[in-house]
Amino acid sequence: MTPRIARYLADNDVATPALVVDLDRVEANFRAIKAAMPHAAVYYAVKANPAPHILRRLAGLGSNFDAASIEEIEDCLAAGAAPQAISFGNTVKKASAIRRAFEHGVPMFAFDSAEEAEKIAKHAPGAQVYCRIAVDNAGADWPLSRKFGCEIESARQHMLYAAELGLEPIGLSFHVGSQQTGTAAYEAAIAKVAMLFTDLKDRGLKMRMLNLGGGFPVRYREEVPHIDEFGRAIGSALAKAFGNAIPDTLVEPGRFLVGDAGVLASEVVLVSKRNKDDAVRWVYLDIGRFGGLAETEGEAIRYHISTPHDGKKQGPVVIAGPSCDGTDVMYDKANYRLPQALSSGDRVLLHATGAYVTSYAAQFFNGFRPPAEHYI
Amino acid sequence: MTPRIARYLADNDVATPALVVDLDRVEANFRAIKAAMPHAAVYYAVKANPAPHILRRLAGLGSNFDAASIEEIEDCLAAGAAPQAISFGNTVKKASAIRRAFEHGVPMFAFDSAEEAEKIAKHAPGAQVYCRIAVDNAGADWPLSRKFGCEIESARQHMLYAAELGLEPIGLSFHVGSQQTGTAAYEAAIAKVAMLFTDLKDRGLKMRMLNLGGGFPVRYREEVPHIDEFGRAIGSALAKAFGNAIPDTLVEPGRFLVGDAGVLASEVVLVSKRNKDDAVRWVYLDIGRFGGLAETEGEAIRYHISTPHDGKKQGPVVIAGPSCDGTDVMYDKANYRLPQALSSGDRVLLHATGAYVTSYAAQFFNGFRPPAEHYI
Repeated sequence: MTPRIARYLADNDVATPALVVDLDRVEANFRAIKAAMPHAAVYYAVKANPAPHILRRLAGLGSNFDAASIEEIEDCLAAGAAPQAISFGNTVKKASAIRRAFEHGVPMFAFDSAEEAEKIAKHAPGAQVYCRIAVDNAGADWPLSRKFGCEIESARQHMLYAAELGLEPIGLSFHVGSQQTGTAAYEAAIAKVAMLFTDLKDRGLKMRMLNLGGGFPVRYREEVPHIDEFGRAIGSALAKAFGNAIPDTLVEPGRFLVGDAGVLASEVVLVSKRNKDDAVRWVYLDIGRFGGLAETEGEAIRYHISTPHDGKKQGPVVIAGPSCDGTDVMYDKANYRLPQALSSGDRVLLHATGAYVTSYAAQFFNGFRPPAEHYI
Repeated sequence: MTPRIARYLADNDVATPALVVDLDRVEANFRAIKAAMPHAAVYYAVKANPAPHILRRLAGLGSNFDAASIEEIEDCLAAGAAPQAISFGNTVKKASAIRRAFEHGVPMFAFDSAEEAEKIAKHAPGAQVYCRIAVDNAGADWPLSRKFGCEIESARQHMLYAAELGLEPIGLSFHVGSQQTGTAAYEAAIAKVAMLFTDLKDRGLKMRMLNLGGGFPVRYREEVPHIDEFGRAIGSALAKAFGNAIPDTLVEPGRFLVGDAGVLASEVVLVSKRNKDDAVRWVYLDIGRFGGLAETEGEAIRYHISTPHDGKKQGPVVIAGPSCDGTDVMYDKANYRLPQALSSGDRVLLHATGAYVTSYAAQFFNGFRPPAEHYI
């Protein structure tokens, strides 16, 4: 937790559930990834947290933006981003969204199929496009692979087809999976796409851009490599694969920029042993899987939780949300332990919750409203 | 699809994604369950769909309401429900919510632990309470069991403890799981709780109410038993367990009342084979798991999907949502087949989507807004 968030929570009687985000930390993270990868253009993955405060701060710092929808594109424009600084990175786009983005002046569109290339050619004629290639997501806590990306040979055909359609195929992209905790996935992906990149250049395409995607991790319960390590590994892999003809590179951090800038305050609604001999207590919070903690599905993302009783005797717990839904259980198998003294009414903090929380929150599941948002 | 919805969709150029709900069908479903279970009081499980139009229609028909939160209680009151007609059915409630509900005049509260009884006694002194017992959820497509309910022996202790705390313990409840497709689960649950019910009566508690929960199914892709079958099975089970001293019974249908009253219109965003030799096409809709189709998690609820090309040649598909999230895939293993002619821009209909869709919809995941809602 940043000192500014700690002070804000101490000074204000914040009604829970509430997310508090330190914009200075977002800025520090932006500067850290720029320092780690000085040659890469940073495109913030807006979906991680589309709050206007974040978009404005990043636009002011000269960030570019990776948008998943026309709504996100228009949020970026409203926050002061230039259309040229926006990439429409979803490989699956409505025709109407492509058209509107093109009219706004957004220059660059992702695709991974012939059908999508045809849609882009029709609704954004002549636009720059890049093809997404499926790569190994091993090491990622929130993998993305099967839904997106095509094989190398398909990408070759798609790129040549895009050129035939009058589009301007400029590059390739991949995504190693979100919360990627190893540098090896980037190295392997770069090696995988480099040959195709060069080959397409030889075939006359004006290849100039390699989009390395996002996935850069945040520290939750376990340590993760520093962003500088990713920078070094990526730099070496690029040099190895491209020699002195390294293309423009582009990274799309989302989680990395905002994740550890946020803390979620939540009230304990109930701590119960429903049966006397139960070994494990159930702790119910006032936010759950459908209130924003969607990434706890399969217990994939394991937030660090602090309580007012930390340091005292602990015991095993199951941690669940406040709704009547049986699937609204965050942690059952992940061996969470919380203080024995914890009881209903206590305030707990879920750390590094700045990314992928508010955006997932259901509008009114079981009547519960999304968490309040405080940007400081 | 009801004729009224078909006409509405034909006459109006509805922007997708959009849910259209036929309130007359909601009313017909209410009358059907009343006819099937003439002696049971019907408490609509508001969480299934809390739209004011539905609450007003049901309040006008004399329905009672099962609420999961203080927000749902206040929605019911705003729709014209009397506080006496509302049960606060969540076993996990904030102290502030209990207090506000009690001040509104809500008479009845669920619990399943000593800790919750203490909270209710403190914030709603003297209130009527009923204890939820864990029962077998076999046969349910959306089970609820582990998170709620206690064992018989614990329920006995909790009920006696509630009386000591000055509460008025009036009954027991259970839930056989949502989309419960067999009548046997109700029969087994009634048999399980009956002995405790009688025993607590003998011990001096003014036991008078048995809450049979909800779970009554809706037809999705497969046939389900008619509500009359559930009525008959429950009637026989009650007679067998209680003889001529059958307690007041209470049912909490949610899905059953509104599920088949709704149709979701969605646009096909892309149909693609990303690689030439892929056997299966990927169909991306403009709504997905985070836009409201949360019950497709684990492919549990399998909606019937109709297209403009029905009757023509079909092929296997994976069906996914529009977001950049790799987990936003609805059906991969459930053997969906859709027409070969399906292409982007086509409008498809997801049937029986009146329940548990809008309430789960994320407020702005990937920038996508929740589906529009039309109540006719």
